[in-house]
Amino acid sequence: MIIDCHGHYTTAPPQLGEYRDAQRAALDADPGHVGEKGELAITDDELRESLEGNQLRLQRERDIDLTIFSPRASWMGHHIGNEHTSRNWTEHCNDLIARICDLYPDNFAPVCQLPQSPGVGVDSSVRELRRCVDELGFIGCNLNPDPSGGNWTGTPLSDPSWYPLFEAMCELDVPAMIHVSATCNPNFHVTSSHYLGADTTAFVQAMTSGVFREFPTMRWVIPHGGGAVPYHWGRFKGMAESNVDAGWAQLDELMDNIYFDTCVYHQPGIDLLVDVVPTDNIIFGSEMLGAVKGIDPDTGEGYDDTKRYIDRAALTDEQRSKIFTDNARRVYPRLNLPGGQP
Amino acid sequence: MIIDCHGHYTTAPPQLGEYRDAQRAALDADPGHVGEKGELAITDDELRESLEGNQLRLQRERDIDLTIFSPRASWMGHHIGNEHTSRNWTEHCNDLIARICDLYPDNFAPVCQLPQSPGVGVDSSVRELRRCVDELGFIGCNLNPDPSGGNWTGTPLSDPSWYPLFEAMCELDVPAMIHVSATCNPNFHVTSSHYLGADTTAFVQAMTSGVFREFPTMRWVIPHGGGAVPYHWGRFKGMAESNVDAGWAQLDELMDNIYFDTCVYHQPGIDLLVDVVPTDNIIFGSEMLGAVKGIDPDTGEGYDDTKRYIDRAALTDEQRSKIFTDNARRVYPRLNLPGGQP
Repeated sequence: MIIDCHGHYTTAPPQLGEYRDAQRAALDADPGHVGEKGELAITDDELRESLEGNQLRLQRERDIDLTIFSPRASWMGHHIGNEHTSRNWTEHCNDLIARICDLYPDNFAPVCQLPQSPGVGVDSSVRELRRCVDELGFIGCNLNPDPSGGNWTGTPLSDPSWYPLFEAMCELDVPAMIHVSATCNPNFHVTSSHYLGADTTAFVQAMTSGVFREFPTMRWVIPHGGGAVPYHWGRFKGMAESNVDAGWAQLDELMDNIYFDTCVYHQPGIDLLVDVVPTDNIIFGSEMLGAVKGIDPDTGEGYDDTKRYIDRAALTDEQRSKIFTDNARRVYPRLNLPGGQP
Repeated sequence: MIIDCHGHYTTAPPQLGEYRDAQRAALDADPGHVGEKGELAITDDELRESLEGNQLRLQRERDIDLTIFSPRASWMGHHIGNEHTSRNWTEHCNDLIARICDLYPDNFAPVCQLPQSPGVGVDSSVRELRRCVDELGFIGCNLNPDPSGGNWTGTPLSDPSWYPLFEAMCELDVPAMIHVSATCNPNFHVTSSHYLGADTTAFVQAMTSGVFREFPTMRWVIPHGGGAVPYHWGRFKGMAESNVDAGWAQLDELMDNIYFDTCVYHQPGIDLLVDVVPTDNIIFGSEMLGAVKGIDPDTGEGYDDTKRYIDRAALTDEQRSKIFTDNARRVYPRLNLPGGQP
């Protein structure tokens, strides 16, 4: 069984974008605009149509059985508007994911975004996480380490202001994928420098703070193959070893809590990932349909067809089974699969 | 001959830090403090002593013939104080490098920092670059893509406000290493997430803008093995191919202007680097004494002893010669070596 831990609903019907446009227009008129959640008139047939030729087609073509599915990451846009903007938008985005997973329970398992907002605490995020997990059957969340959208004006993930959310994640036994959204800082490009920089940043915040000692059962999935971390494994290992006295977590210690997906779009990158990161800490992911939808002219294969890279990597069958199935079941214990939990 | 393109003067006598402390104290009293350049009472013997047991010892132990040497990167601190602070500090730091290279012309070749300051144009940087190159024999500069120190409040490197500096670099035929300094943003850790994130960011700014089409002879060295770029080579290649119409530079096009050093501190990372990046675009570097000075307990070798990784990598003698010598001579044509220029 092949589980893809990193899929986003990037193909929603236009009504979703129109809802967002209306929010923006209201905010242009009044930055403090509160608004109502309102209705999103999207039919089940429209949901099916948006998926059949896209994610579902690729699942079939690529032998992926199930995708852990969340709202479009670059559209989370926590920096847009205020906490009310974020809450209304987030609830709609999560509701759509819930409906999709009800329509295709064998193909998708739901992960939610959170109604984060710059300078606003995590209470509303805790409430939405509980709603999604307790009422809608979600199995994880996407946590944005920079709700300011590339200005990095908030606090590191080690700051106690995040703790109520971490406590809820532990209590509910759901992991977070640490995933930024769009950037309004022109220095960064969203799906390249911003995503990869944030991945590395989140890892370093955990390493330098030892925050997992406070939350020993908390689990983070760092997407996009862990940003720059596996490529610079020696750098991080050496720095952590030199900073034991400063309380830094060592890499093997972090491997109790941190997992990397396989959204690395060429064979040498995947080969490095599986070489340096313990197999137990790698979860198959393809990010489809995501940042790189093209065909590599050198190979004739889709860049984001990451299963092929895993198939070709120097791995035993047991290791491949961990990456494709077992690790996801362990990290997302609420994933309800035929045969029950491991 | 082995040329290390990335060494910093991290072992300066205490007088240098005391000068900086005095600057900070004056700024605490008056943020607009102008000050004088003043004197830095460091003797030649003190300079020799600061190097003999450190950089020079490691050069001998590691068979490195010459280090391209610049002021301590994390101390550039362009975000501290104002343009006067930065100019006085920068001139002293560069003067020390000039003296060291005069004392040890066979061991060190000089690269300068620039008197950047947030919100201040590059005119003073152009002046200091000219002083260093024309009067002091410098062969390159370190350019900070984020003089705000981790807040990223300035403009991307593609912005025309940088062009006067790029024009001077082209006219003087000197490259820039794109290297950030300390961060005052608690989200980032200086020598890990900040350095690596900035490396990736600089590459992406070049890729998405095509800025090198305006400066076809300009050369950038991206340090720390190019941040996350080689590990995500497929991602960048695919994104660039999908954005031809948007004017993005393709990876092979960028290889006319961009070079990566080898400051990657484990064998699998170096193996990936030399596998995916053209050999002509890799320049030996170790960053010593830099971010990771420890010994890897698994190998008994220094993490930053990057020559060993290159020696062991799957490279021909010709490729190794390019990485150790020839590429540096090509990228730094003002490097004055026995035997003249290639």
